[in-house]
Amino acid sequence: MNNYINPKYQSKLKKRKSRSVKTLFSRLIHGDKVALSQAITLIESEQQKHQKTVDELITSCLPHSGQSIRIGITGVPGVGKSTFIEAFGKTLIQEGKQVAVLAVDPTSSVSKGSILGDKTRMQGLVKEKNAYISPTASGSSLGGVARKTRESIILCEATGYDVILVETVGVGQSETAVHSMTDFFLLLKLAGAGDELQGMKRGIIEMADAILINKADGENQKAAKKAQMEFKRALHLYPEKNSQWIPKVKCISSINNKGITEIWDMIKAYQKSTIENGFFNQNRFEQQKFWLFDSLNQKLKQNFYDHPKLKSKLKIYLDKIEQQEISSFKVADQLYQYYLDSIKEK
Amino acid sequence: MNNYINPKYQSKLKKRKSRSVKTLFSRLIHGDKVALSQAITLIESEQQKHQKTVDELITSCLPHSGQSIRIGITGVPGVGKSTFIEAFGKTLIQEGKQVAVLAVDPTSSVSKGSILGDKTRMQGLVKEKNAYISPTASGSSLGGVARKTRESIILCEATGYDVILVETVGVGQSETAVHSMTDFFLLLKLAGAGDELQGMKRGIIEMADAILINKADGENQKAAKKAQMEFKRALHLYPEKNSQWIPKVKCISSINNKGITEIWDMIKAYQKSTIENGFFNQNRFEQQKFWLFDSLNQKLKQNFYDHPKLKSKLKIYLDKIEQQEISSFKVADQLYQYYLDSIKEK
Repeated sequence: MNNYINPKYQSKLKKRKSRSVKTLFSRLIHGDKVALSQAITLIESEQQKHQKTVDELITSCLPHSGQSIRIGITGVPGVGKSTFIEAFGKTLIQEGKQVAVLAVDPTSSVSKGSILGDKTRMQGLVKEKNAYISPTASGSSLGGVARKTRESIILCEATGYDVILVETVGVGQSETAVHSMTDFFLLLKLAGAGDELQGMKRGIIEMADAILINKADGENQKAAKKAQMEFKRALHLYPEKNSQWIPKVKCISSINNKGITEIWDMIKAYQKSTIENGFFNQNRFEQQKFWLFDSLNQKLKQNFYDHPKLKSKLKIYLDKIEQQEISSFKVADQLYQYYLDSIKEK
Repeated sequence: MNNYINPKYQSKLKKRKSRSVKTLFSRLIHGDKVALSQAITLIESEQQKHQKTVDELITSCLPHSGQSIRIGITGVPGVGKSTFIEAFGKTLIQEGKQVAVLAVDPTSSVSKGSILGDKTRMQGLVKEKNAYISPTASGSSLGGVARKTRESIILCEATGYDVILVETVGVGQSETAVHSMTDFFLLLKLAGAGDELQGMKRGIIEMADAILINKADGENQKAAKKAQMEFKRALHLYPEKNSQWIPKVKCISSINNKGITEIWDMIKAYQKSTIENGFFNQNRFEQQKFWLFDSLNQKLKQNFYDHPKLKSKLKIYLDKIEQQEISSFKVADQLYQYYLDSIKEK
């Protein structure tokens, strides 16, 4: 391949690119939803030149970001997340808010089709001028998906959205990822038969700032009240949160729009109290540090384990470990030394 | 420093060292307790030549290891771990077993003095011909301490000890480390007032193969029975273990030697059933893989974060992140690239 580019043309290219970042940025901060869609499409692109554009765009947007409240929403499929977001989003818009909805789903990909269904859901909200529903960030690794979503939050905020809803179906560690990029974490549950806590994924309750018992309507109401009691009792067992916020358990009915305004009031109260005690901003900085170290650790591991020669070496060593010919620790020493040597040789 | 060594002398040195490994090894597999102590002292040494000797010794011992049952024991200070080990160890010796006791305590160090007290505890057991009590593996990082303990297990087994008790006070992640190097995991508890589960470290109950309510004697008996019920109920909420073993909750009195033989019977039953269903050996191989990847990941991180120039760079970048001048992800990209370049330059 001929890599030569005429210097004159090169400078033209540079100008064009920088102009495109500049234009996109300028449209974004003037609230242009189409520009936001274009920018988020660039985030999804695997092309290196697009990634560079995104990098520059994010850097420009950063000073214009951070003014929203970021709300994480999780719950198993069927719990009614879309219906809740639809009702909650409309309430927010009535309050004069601009609402962006993002979704994290590490298992979906463009080719496989998102399991969240995106714009086919929340049909009412999607028509609202002051709502933006982003396609689900896709990718095979949670790290990649999380990065895309984090970057989308920045772009949405720069565009003027002041409530960001980040939804996840809770596959693998995706709840932890969403919890690490939001200010307030909502867990949606259904009142079911038997013990509400059984089979509960470890740590989810601990992350929740509020548990919403959805579909608390009609015949479900009694069971919902009972579930509410059980969750309240369970929450009692956990140590106090750093935010000093005491997690709430509420019964709601998304389809009847019951209890939805109260959720927004609760989140406003949370925001007020955590801004006052300093947790809100401290937490956001901690989250940024978390993402820095998380990406660094991902890179370190990926670069090591994707090393082509190392993979076959690892396989041979694992056999030797199983045959008790060598200790795990000695293998680690040897593989690591081999890796360092191979980087230096490059 | 003059690094020149007369080749004649060098070969002599090599012989002497290899002879010393050979002698030590030969003494070990003939059950020499003094040799075991010497070898474990070498493990604790930070000197590189000692580490090399240890490496060779471990490799020689590996084919002679693995024949024991490894039992992890945890519980908060005051729960009576030493008294239990004393009673349990004597029972094992009466059954014709040879018992080695190791301890993991990442906070203790030789200079600070071990908080476990080592040989001043278990005064009866320490006098037994068929018992060996190792000094607590010390060090500032859990990774280092865990490695030393894992290596000590190999040496103890090669020396002929067939029950290895690995004790921890449960500081930080030390319980997870001990769980990852043992076949059976015992959690010691006391019957207390109020809710037994409150304040419980997350995940500990999930790791336990048995919970022992200690000091179930005299006036404590009623409370112990109640605690037993509560733990049984709590265990019920957890999913089935891969071992297919249903965790047990037992009341014991170590000072009265009550219920101690039953614990050994239970562990024998566990060993029998997990050897039959294949879990026992599969689990040991999984543990070896865990330690391999754990040490590799530690090395990757350590080498990166201990990089002298990177530390100051990181500090500057963190400030920029806080000022919203640059995104966490871009910083990760830049720091990582800088790191790769600096390895290549070396």
